[in-house]
Amino acid sequence: MGRRRHLLGLEALSREETVAILDRAASFKKDGRLIPGKRDTLKGKAVLLLFFEPSTRTSMSFEIAAKRLSADVLRFNGAGSSLTKGESLIDTARNIEAMGNIDVAVIRHSVPGTPQLLARSIDAAVINAGDGAHEHPTQGLLDVMTIREVKGGFEGLKVAIVGDIAHSRVARSDIFALNTLGAEVTVCGPATLIPDDITALGVDVSYDFDALIPEMDVVIMLRIQRERMEESLLPSDREYTRCFGLTRDRATRMKPDAIVMHPGPINRGVELAPEVADGERSVILQQVTNGVAVRMAVLEMLLET
Amino acid sequence: MGRRRHLLGLEALSREETVAILDRAASFKKDGRLIPGKRDTLKGKAVLLLFFEPSTRTSMSFEIAAKRLSADVLRFNGAGSSLTKGESLIDTARNIEAMGNIDVAVIRHSVPGTPQLLARSIDAAVINAGDGAHEHPTQGLLDVMTIREVKGGFEGLKVAIVGDIAHSRVARSDIFALNTLGAEVTVCGPATLIPDDITALGVDVSYDFDALIPEMDVVIMLRIQRERMEESLLPSDREYTRCFGLTRDRATRMKPDAIVMHPGPINRGVELAPEVADGERSVILQQVTNGVAVRMAVLEMLLET
Amino acid sequence: MGRRRHLLGLEALSREETVAILDRAASFKKDGRLIPGKRDTLKGKAVLLLFFEPSTRTSMSFEIAAKRLSADVLRFNGAGSSLTKGESLIDTARNIEAMGNIDVAVIRHSVPGTPQLLARSIDAAVINAGDGAHEHPTQGLLDVMTIREVKGGFEGLKVAIVGDIAHSRVARSDIFALNTLGAEVTVCGPATLIPDDITALGVDVSYDFDALIPEMDVVIMLRIQRERMEESLLPSDREYTRCFGLTRDRATRMKPDAIVMHPGPINRGVELAPEVADGERSVILQQVTNGVAVRMAVLEMLLET
Repeated sequence: MGRRRHLLGLEALSREETVAILDRAASFKKDGRLIPGKRDTLKGKAVLLLFFEPSTRTSMSFEIAAKRLSADVLRFNGAGSSLTKGESLIDTARNIEAMGNIDVAVIRHSVPGTPQLLARSIDAAVINAGDGAHEHPTQGLLDVMTIREVKGGFEGLKVAIVGDIAHSRVARSDIFALNTLGAEVTVCGPATLIPDDITALGVDVSYDFDALIPEMDVVIMLRIQRERMEESLLPSDREYTRCFGLTRDRATRMKPDAIVMHPGPINRGVELAPEVADGERSVILQQVTNGVAVRMAVLEMLLET
Repeated sequence: MGRRRHLLGLEALSREETVAILDRAASFKKDGRLIPGKRDTLKGKAVLLLFFEPSTRTSMSFEIAAKRLSADVLRFNGAGSSLTKGESLIDTARNIEAMGNIDVAVIRHSVPGTPQLLARSIDAAVINAGDGAHEHPTQGLLDVMTIREVKGGFEGLKVAIVGDIAHSRVARSDIFALNTLGAEVTVCGPATLIPDDITALGVDVSYDFDALIPEMDVVIMLRIQRERMEESLLPSDREYTRCFGLTRDRATRMKPDAIVMHPGPINRGVELAPEVADGERSVILQQVTNGVAVRMAVLEMLLET
Repeated sequence: MGRRRHLLGLEALSREETVAILDRAASFKKDGRLIPGKRDTLKGKAVLLLFFEPSTRTSMSFEIAAKRLSADVLRFNGAGSSLTKGESLIDTARNIEAMGNIDVAVIRHSVPGTPQLLARSIDAAVINAGDGAHEHPTQGLLDVMTIREVKGGFEGLKVAIVGDIAHSRVARSDIFALNTLGAEVTVCGPATLIPDDITALGVDVSYDFDALIPEMDVVIMLRIQRERMEESLLPSDREYTRCFGLTRDRATRMKPDAIVMHPGPINRGVELAPEVADGERSVILQQVTNGVAVRMAVLEMLLET
């Protein structure tokens, strides 16, 4: 960051840049909570939320982050917008920009690469809030921020990412950030949902969650997309849980200080047992809090010059 | 209030608590109108609106009330949210709370008891903005505030609530508040829409609107839900109006100073004739104004300590 | 304006009033851009956005304009509102007004005359943001503002409006404003989409776009509504483009300093070639910027007394 104009993904982010964001984000917290009150850093700046996929948490997290920095927030909802009249995304973005003074555009879109396209088309800084199965960089950042808070560092840390790796932008951004910071990542899931070339990203692959469990310091459970079952990429809920769910029983076989993460929303009882989601190992709500901190940091740093 | 943390219903609210809210609400009005300008009492506080049923007036009334107290308002729309992805309400609420600094959550939900469930799950104060057919406490409060303004008090006051008593949270909250303050309440409507055990709430029952009309000081007309006709609990519009509509003719047989109320939105020409809705007896817009005053009072008082 | 309470259309607006709005709007720009920062002129005022048709740009433009004047913005969405419960528009508006302190209501509605109806029913100033095929006055104003910026004036200026004249509120408001300011207007399109009595508005009619092209100083292309094709009022996309599209080829035959306008959103490749929309003649994004300036001017002037 600093000289960066956009945050489009974590693949190209250096260790120094990543750590600078985490440090900035950490400065917004005290005693495990966000410091109350507002900062004036984005006063008079306008943040545009462009969500073309349904999203509650991420868009609300960005909204809260922007407002805590005293920015004005404009919300553009893809559904029911002029896009349904056939207008292109870029026309829309240029139009909104012509209305004046958009400083940051936060975009979520089902098509990978849309944030890059947007960044080439407008003057405002662009933050990728999830583009198809490509990247979700602020999720990756909040995940490593949470791990750093609990574990202190990444050297020799064993992290498993479990679930539908093939379709997960969370998995990709997590892998990039974790590799950059020095953790050892293993991805785990049904063979149909792990791409053949995933090892090119510098991760190990396992199809045996039970064998993996006792070795890991961090287990990141991905949300199961029920649509995949209809596509026959996944067996039934029950079968998935049996092989790849983090059940109560599996949780008892984790290392004593291992932690459980999930990007939400959780399918309780499918990929994650309710008792584990709400249990002592879970740092899921800490992830949510850190999401606001990380987004505040990114917003501030992109607008610094 | 005062020591109360939540406003979940009026059933448990004492006379003193009720009067304290009405007095506070009255202090926000002058010459029959809301005093212009903003108060600073909720500056830096965040109010979350969680509406899982379509609502315009109530959610807008809460939004206006919160903004007049200088609170920040966050809006979470149930439709198109992560709830459609199968996440539970409580997970959603906990997540939003983990994003930091929610002071009050205002919730409307079709399932009775949801606000109670929410109150047990989060740290913020909870206000019930309508839960199924259970309660709608701020509607009850604005109704008694309006009656007090016009009638001066409740002693010996005869109030009829007319319509679909069985499915009405408004009727229930009105009954609790009116009983607490000493009014005499009669419910009236088709036998299919009056529960057998309603007298246990301390009200009289009538199936003969015409006989009731000349005796009443206040007539609260409930909105007819056309869905009930499909369920065969109600006859046609025309038949309903003939028996239980407040027609022009019936209005002429009311006591000279009797008033007409309606929680809105009105089915004009069904339960209420347009001439009566817009006539001299109608205090319907006064109810709307008082809705903002009452919600300001509740928000302020829940956050005082 | 000045003594005007509402902006319902441009038909009745005098030359002096029109110029006063354009001058005020111009004062908000410098070096072709909106002057950054906020003005305090509407501080403490509330602007209500009542959009009963899907709209992104216009509603966002009004929102940005109001916020740049420090107004509070309330948004009422027609879809999913109590209107779906059968409540009338006027009841809704009166209710919102009873909640207090609405100073301006901006309304878009598919039924012509709805803004007039609203203006008669509430105390707030009303701005028509588009009513059926009747008028869209702020679009007309931003169009003439843009022409004035580029061309300096209107005397002897030849302006073509091309497309579905019959169903276009933009065409009507443009015609009124251009006539008032002294331009010569020709409407052009398929015979099925030009009303017989259009000449009564003081415009010429042409069915031959190719003959018109070399004569015009300004060409305003209207958006083609694909719904009209289903109604057999229009031939196919390709056929429409061949006869009435502003293609690259046609653009080369325009006067050297002629300009191209479009109210957006564009059907790229149908009524307007992408190269022309993004080319040197296009002032489309300037129109968008001027939309905010014009709306700021109207909001300010309606609330001055």
